[in-house]
Amino acid sequence: MGIESGKVKSLDREVFYEGSIGEFAQEQVELPDGRTIRLAILHHPGAAAVLPFVDDDNVVLIRQYRHAAGGVLWEIPAGKLDAGEVPEQCALRELQEETGYQATQVTALGQIFTTPGFTDEVIHLYMATGLQAGAQQLDGDEWLEVHVVPFEAALQMVQKGEITDAKTVCALLYAARQLGR
Amino acid sequence: MGIESGKVKSLDREVFYEGSIGEFAQEQVELPDGRTIRLAILHHPGAAAVLPFVDDDNVVLIRQYRHAAGGVLWEIPAGKLDAGEVPEQCALRELQEETGYQATQVTALGQIFTTPGFTDEVIHLYMATGLQAGAQQLDGDEWLEVHVVPFEAALQMVQKGEITDAKTVCALLYAARQLGR
Repeated sequence: MGIESGKVKSLDREVFYEGSIGEFAQEQVELPDGRTIRLAILHHPGAAAVLPFVDDDNVVLIRQYRHAAGGVLWEIPAGKLDAGEVPEQCALRELQEETGYQATQVTALGQIFTTPGFTDEVIHLYMATGLQAGAQQLDGDEWLEVHVVPFEAALQMVQKGEITDAKTVCALLYAARQLGR
Repeated sequence: MGIESGKVKSLDREVFYEGSIGEFAQEQVELPDGRTIRLAILHHPGAAAVLPFVDDDNVVLIRQYRHAAGGVLWEIPAGKLDAGEVPEQCALRELQEETGYQATQVTALGQIFTTPGFTDEVIHLYMATGLQAGAQQLDGDEWLEVHVVPFEAALQMVQKGEITDAKTVCALLYAARQLGR
């Protein structure tokens, strides 16, 4: 198993933007039946996200300002893969940078294509345990708060529509099934 | 409750691309603490997706070619909102166009921001029941196959990493919790 961002080949491409989130291009591509179509794609480096358990019954969530969402969202710690970085290391690094927590154990939950109609972004999802608290190291463009929330309350927040970030919904519901909760 | 795409305001913006998936722009935005940063955002019209039950134990999934994913993904029927279209109508329309099925009943499962770091895309998720089979009406740029799959098998495909599309993972796991499966 294992899916990766950035593995597509196109017949022709025109790049509109290159920046920190990747490269945005319009491309000519071939369908399985031989037809060719034009598509706009954001080529993304891929990302990792982690659901941290401080103990059996409590998880760490962040409240993060997301301009695109028009406000603050409940999320799990996450970030883009650095060049050459494996997803598990990225998850541990982002956990430490965004929340201060270091984890001794990390377990894969799954992998998602966030929105494959227009980006090749893959997010690798993990659970982390064996946490030790420490100091946050936020990027200059981040604004976020760290909260410890009962796992059952977080699942209720998903059901009530208070948690709407897709990677966070997926990680919580994957974990609930794996843990039989 | 209710979240919507396209509700953000920016201090300044430069548009790189406008097309069928929305408008891609670099924008200057203000954080909650007053700092200003630059962000790249794809403004998306929003979408709806639907998990159709042909009976209590079987769902309709599609196998769809996704260039950005480098191949074919298992998904649920979905598509962008037309101008002025409410999400529930969009879900029923996309169900009918992509699979031929018409549904008499539709139930909300939840709403997700697919990847709020770089797009305001919201997908409204539904379950549909009371299906009647009919003829597909695919768009010219679509390639997809329709499959009826046992619901329990679909949940296993999520756990095994064979279903990786985020909206499809979310809809299946939301439905499993709502139905106590």
